[in-house]
Amino acid sequence: MEFDPNDRDCPTRQLLDRIGDQWTVLIVLSLRDGPRRFTEIGTWINGISQKVLSQTLRSLVRDGMLTRTAYAEVPPRVEYALTPLGHNLAETVTYLDRWAREHMGEVLAARAEFDQVKAAAR
Amino acid sequence: MEFDPNDRDCPTRQLLDRIGDQWTVLIVLSLRDGPRRFTEIGTWINGISQKVLSQTLRSLVRDGMLTRTAYAEVPPRVEYALTPLGHNLAETVTYLDRWAREHMGEVLAARAEFDQVKAAAR
Repeated sequence: MEFDPNDRDCPTRQLLDRIGDQWTVLIVLSLRDGPRRFTEIGTWINGISQKVLSQTLRSLVRDGMLTRTAYAEVPPRVEYALTPLGHNLAETVTYLDRWAREHMGEVLAARAEFDQVKAAAR
Repeated sequence: MEFDPNDRDCPTRQLLDRIGDQWTVLIVLSLRDGPRRFTEIGTWINGISQKVLSQTLRSLVRDGMLTRTAYAEVPPRVEYALTPLGHNLAETVTYLDRWAREHMGEVLAARAEFDQVKAAAR
């Protein structure tokens, strides 16, 4: 079977959307240096709701990118870690993160110019 | 100014979300080999609505990734093309596209295993 995101019925289209999702990117990057707890991930990615964090983590575990380990301690400790597949994805999404950081200035300049031209045309 | 997608107020967070969006990825990839018309892009990306295509193209033009050129012909012809910034983005999102194609099988296997374990635990 050939996977092709240009086919609307191919599961790669949904996968493509999921791996490029900002929360997926930030969660995967937050785990590059080792396992972290739920609250640690949430703190690192400031501005993510508990609900979205919880849903995205579950999806990533189901997709084989993360492991979830619960330790029988008091208070209970739950840690998330990248699987080999998740580490592989982290390498790829690092390019997106880097692109956004490196080209934000150019994008902001392009937006300012676009908006100025549109305003002048009114 | 340092751009950092981990800062919820940094514009890179929104940019990160936009460049990883499935429609952005597919539109940018559709223009790798040269300019295309609106309808050609829509056909290449089957399953995208005219509204979403139109909105995404406009955002990409505003962000400096695409140019939109209208030719005074009958019937009128409008072409979209990657700018140098857009070509640069295309190189980056190619990694996402490739990742989805190469690892879809592993993800599907992980999902099947996850669902089986959950079903057995019920």
